[in-house]
Amino acid sequence: MGITIKAQKRIRDYGIVIGKINTGKKNAITDVNGVKVGHITLDNGGIKTGVTVILPHGGNIFRDKVMAACHIINGFGKSVGLIQIDELGTIETPIVLTNTFSIGVAADALIEYMINENDDIGLTTSSVNPVVCECNDSYLNDMRGRHVKKENIFDAIKNADAEFEEGSVGAGTGMTCYQLKGGIGSASRRVAFENRSYTVGALVLTNFGVKDDLMVDGIKAGEIISNLCPVESIRRDNGSVIIVLATDIPMTERQLKRISKRAAAGICRTGSYIGNGSGEIVIAFTTAHKIKHYGKEPVVAVKMLNETLLDDVFRAVVESTEEAVLNSLICAETTKGRDGNISYSLKEYIREILK
Amino acid sequence: MGITIKAQKRIRDYGIVIGKINTGKKNAITDVNGVKVGHITLDNGGIKTGVTVILPHGGNIFRDKVMAACHIINGFGKSVGLIQIDELGTIETPIVLTNTFSIGVAADALIEYMINENDDIGLTTSSVNPVVCECNDSYLNDMRGRHVKKENIFDAIKNADAEFEEGSVGAGTGMTCYQLKGGIGSASRRVAFENRSYTVGALVLTNFGVKDDLMVDGIKAGEIISNLCPVESIRRDNGSVIIVLATDIPMTERQLKRISKRAAAGICRTGSYIGNGSGEIVIAFTTAHKIKHYGKEPVVAVKMLNETLLDDVFRAVVESTEEAVLNSLICAETTKGRDGNISYSLKEYIREILK
Amino acid sequence: MGITIKAQKRIRDYGIVIGKINTGKKNAITDVNGVKVGHITLDNGGIKTGVTVILPHGGNIFRDKVMAACHIINGFGKSVGLIQIDELGTIETPIVLTNTFSIGVAADALIEYMINENDDIGLTTSSVNPVVCECNDSYLNDMRGRHVKKENIFDAIKNADAEFEEGSVGAGTGMTCYQLKGGIGSASRRVAFENRSYTVGALVLTNFGVKDDLMVDGIKAGEIISNLCPVESIRRDNGSVIIVLATDIPMTERQLKRISKRAAAGICRTGSYIGNGSGEIVIAFTTAHKIKHYGKEPVVAVKMLNETLLDDVFRAVVESTEEAVLNSLICAETTKGRDGNISYSLKEYIREILK
Amino acid sequence: MGITIKAQKRIRDYGIVIGKINTGKKNAITDVNGVKVGHITLDNGGIKTGVTVILPHGGNIFRDKVMAACHIINGFGKSVGLIQIDELGTIETPIVLTNTFSIGVAADALIEYMINENDDIGLTTSSVNPVVCECNDSYLNDMRGRHVKKENIFDAIKNADAEFEEGSVGAGTGMTCYQLKGGIGSASRRVAFENRSYTVGALVLTNFGVKDDLMVDGIKAGEIISNLCPVESIRRDNGSVIIVLATDIPMTERQLKRISKRAAAGICRTGSYIGNGSGEIVIAFTTAHKIKHYGKEPVVAVKMLNETLLDDVFRAVVESTEEAVLNSLICAETTKGRDGNISYSLKEYIREILK
Repeated sequence: MGITIKAQKRIRDYGIVIGKINTGKKNAITDVNGVKVGHITLDNGGIKTGVTVILPHGGNIFRDKVMAACHIINGFGKSVGLIQIDELGTIETPIVLTNTFSIGVAADALIEYMINENDDIGLTTSSVNPVVCECNDSYLNDMRGRHVKKENIFDAIKNADAEFEEGSVGAGTGMTCYQLKGGIGSASRRVAFENRSYTVGALVLTNFGVKDDLMVDGIKAGEIISNLCPVESIRRDNGSVIIVLATDIPMTERQLKRISKRAAAGICRTGSYIGNGSGEIVIAFTTAHKIKHYGKEPVVAVKMLNETLLDDVFRAVVESTEEAVLNSLICAETTKGRDGNISYSLKEYIREILK
Repeated sequence: MGITIKAQKRIRDYGIVIGKINTGKKNAITDVNGVKVGHITLDNGGIKTGVTVILPHGGNIFRDKVMAACHIINGFGKSVGLIQIDELGTIETPIVLTNTFSIGVAADALIEYMINENDDIGLTTSSVNPVVCECNDSYLNDMRGRHVKKENIFDAIKNADAEFEEGSVGAGTGMTCYQLKGGIGSASRRVAFENRSYTVGALVLTNFGVKDDLMVDGIKAGEIISNLCPVESIRRDNGSVIIVLATDIPMTERQLKRISKRAAAGICRTGSYIGNGSGEIVIAFTTAHKIKHYGKEPVVAVKMLNETLLDDVFRAVVESTEEAVLNSLICAETTKGRDGNISYSLKEYIREILK
Repeated sequence: MGITIKAQKRIRDYGIVIGKINTGKKNAITDVNGVKVGHITLDNGGIKTGVTVILPHGGNIFRDKVMAACHIINGFGKSVGLIQIDELGTIETPIVLTNTFSIGVAADALIEYMINENDDIGLTTSSVNPVVCECNDSYLNDMRGRHVKKENIFDAIKNADAEFEEGSVGAGTGMTCYQLKGGIGSASRRVAFENRSYTVGALVLTNFGVKDDLMVDGIKAGEIISNLCPVESIRRDNGSVIIVLATDIPMTERQLKRISKRAAAGICRTGSYIGNGSGEIVIAFTTAHKIKHYGKEPVVAVKMLNETLLDDVFRAVVESTEEAVLNSLICAETTKGRDGNISYSLKEYIREILK
Repeated sequence: MGITIKAQKRIRDYGIVIGKINTGKKNAITDVNGVKVGHITLDNGGIKTGVTVILPHGGNIFRDKVMAACHIINGFGKSVGLIQIDELGTIETPIVLTNTFSIGVAADALIEYMINENDDIGLTTSSVNPVVCECNDSYLNDMRGRHVKKENIFDAIKNADAEFEEGSVGAGTGMTCYQLKGGIGSASRRVAFENRSYTVGALVLTNFGVKDDLMVDGIKAGEIISNLCPVESIRRDNGSVIIVLATDIPMTERQLKRISKRAAAGICRTGSYIGNGSGEIVIAFTTAHKIKHYGKEPVVAVKMLNETLLDDVFRAVVESTEEAVLNSLICAETTKGRDGNISYSLKEYIREILK
């Protein structure tokens, strides 16, 4: 499944098939039933930024939380809300991705959105934990201008759909990955246990890596590209990557943490050595059971996967993450941003790479 | 040293001496040379909230970072910036304390403040990691109204001084601790190794605990109070506590993490059992050496404490934290907040407790 | 419930009632149905050591694992097996407690025991994770002599019973706590949710603390004791404490980790400031559901507690742990060990303390 | 630098050059000055196991500890001593690698060795923290027979040298990696900061992975091999990998932890997706400064690397680890073990792979 709903040409459409497991229908995180993704893109001269939101399900997320865990590969990042995810094992808001200097406004918008949707929060019940992740898009974007506004977050939530664009869009508008144009990418895998089939999906916001390191399914693509355009000076790996994993497989929080750790393998398979400046954060959630905010039963029935079957899920995570990174690159367009800085699209080199 | 610069009557002024180690001159976190604290108090009817900032030193914190670590006692909280503290072992901004729903605006203000002070951030150098911690003051404060504005953070930074108030002030304005009025408290201890004397200081924002549990230096104060006013219904422990530790003792990040873990002992000695809803966060920093943002030496000389001497530091942390909690209670005034909710001051019961 | 099956006089028998929650029938970890404790005591001149084992249930623990988590308060310790508990969320062997220099022989014995009981381990199925925790009893015991033998572990497992002794027994034989005689202690609490009642039990191996710090239910017992016997020189807090928590409440691994963190509050309420040298380790398990080694279902039904009810469990943990520490002290006998070193029993001072 | 002192043909001798950084003289962990490695191999029919030790330096390791950190990629393992490494930031014994069922005897031997070398341990000073890591070699080895004896550990320590063998030797004798013969591998890199040159070295004990996944410098070697020998049934990834990193670069414990996390990238570049059953543990130490057990200065001068230079170290770690894994494979010999189980050497396929 290469072509998205948005008719972008994805990495599979170039004949590159990552791994061996079948993809979901859309080969996207939204193959997990109920998950939606929304973008707002701010693209105006030196303004190259935006917002991407992931909705874990279509209902009231505060009242019906999803079980979740997170993993910090490299904590050189400013993400908001991760501590409580680990402590309570739940996500209770949309997940917002944006640029580093917009985490404040995004957290503020998310709080506002949540209290407007729920008149009990912070009054008759507890507060709410906004989840905001970020990458630094300052190479292409006037990040100091802080152009993301609260309305952009509200609108991204409204825009959320099972069909969504990849590449230079939403939070990915100004991102740079392997010194090429990065951004939003996604992929999914199907795994079956006995008679039931489940989905694992990944969405990545890619903004990491040095050109020479890029690997495309084992091909040293970065070296090929560097030979084609030898002039560009080496730039430190100051980026980041955010990986959101969704599944409908029943898991406990511990199991979700285990799968979140495997995303790193997917990232590394594209060539990364996890640079000093690259804040790398993974969030994983399952829609298999909702944790009710006002649950009345003292003891709640949940389900977990037989641990011995996790291997199949790990592979699905690794393959999804690797392919999502490549989709983020191949779907992105060459972009000229602030002060004339340019990130070229992988598309411009893919023919040479595949020779 | 009981009386602060602000002439508030502190727990020592009632004859209660916590521990055995000598205090610093002000018996406050600002006994650590260079550390300053600033408040903005918003107190208007149902608006009972504010901002407290801790400046690690008086210079450019981004260019001269302090070594730091943090520890999460209970991650049911929304603090911002902790992940990077642990990864990089530094703090590079003022530390801002406020209410839960103001973390977004506070992070945004801190980013704005930092980029205004440093025209390189997010342009020619990396981004910046705002550190914002919070407690939920919604029992007394109209927290949903989100009354903290960016200017309040800027002003709190401007206000920062070595002399500062405790109790119902700044971020502590609307906080409730052991179902009494909580808020800001501080204390310090002096420790000497060979011929040199050092300081350990704690500042707490207290918003945790159930009345019955309160212990004052071994006295079951909570039970005494409950007998005096038996009517108040039991309320779940939905609060939080933020503990900031400062020292001028040379330590590595690992050692700073070790001391931050001991703050929990100080909290527990006041009676807490670390409730489910009580997000408890510790941040520790040392001013002993600055980590230069533009350091040119490849190898940097630092110093660490001989590990066997840590016991004295641990005791200093425990004593400072315990006394800071009691100061936050005894300095706070009985406060009537939103919807007529009242938190009584410990002052009203202290005579009975000390009988 | 003061008197154990073994007719020892416990802290309640002196009129000291810790907390407010009802105890289980035996006020011991073995109130959790199926849990058993076994001791082997080696007491011969300068040999003052032994082995204590906790069996999570009476069946085949490898085939029917219990869900578990652990928490490291202070990692200055040599416990074996904790990493896998956290990764897989299960315990699959008896838990063995012994002295620091016997962890090797204990792990070896536990492996031998397990492979003798299970001819599939390490042949047709995976290996096995021995769980061994330790404290340093070298003040009273000739620890360098390494007197614990494999047979002692086998025999302690055989001895395991719902009724067991406390104080200077098993692994506690040579332990010293608050510079008094420490050892094994236990306690339990009952918590009810709707119509069902559950048990939380703690067993501690105490070997930590400095005399002056001891608090007995708010009484500064350590200072009283020090005034009675002023001569003893200050000794660094080089001990450790192991806390094993058992419950039949259904919880996920994340919830078990949360309750294990609360044990620290119980320890601190007895006066500890968590010394540098005091390795403090908590292991928590629930018998509510067994995780089958050869489980065939791909998806396993488990249960978790409604998170809002955890507060009651936290209190039960804190109270059980605090009381278990006091039981370990009050049940221990004054002991003269290697090189004439003596640890006095709390019994010798309790009358003065209670005045 | 391909050929070791032991004249084995290494991966570079086949023309495969991992990464771009120069290797050390021996291209082995022992390029870090003072580091030594010793093996004992037990190879007799169904007995295919052994011991490998790494000595951080040639002096008294207890009295002159090395700064260290560790990282758990996958905690499905039984390693001993890791908790204290993280808490205290030091290693004070040789590091012992062996099979899973020999961790008890190895820990016991290491304690015995240390107390024999130091008559103060456990008597007039603290205890000692033995560091033992393991992989499960039961596919080839009669692991249930527990053939490793204490003397083997003593002898391995005695054997330690700057020159050492790789492949099916020492603890690697019975290991299986990517369903091929695994074992011990090593590699090193040189990094220079200003005028000074430093070394980063890795030693791995490889016992993980599924054949199809093997990547050799981007070549899908596993698929090539599987096409050559299609019959072998799929076997779950039940192995493990231990990675020991040594360097002479001055670092704090936090920085050592950061580099230890990058080893995972090196492992993943050989194709692994970090299987469920694959306990993956990293230990990193620096010889740049010794931490004295009886240090008298209250404040100790240490050095740390300028954080911005860590990227070069990360690359050195990733390249060393990747190459060490490949060396472990290519140096190993086809081995027939217990019950006729066979692991083939990568050598048998390397010509086809390189075509």
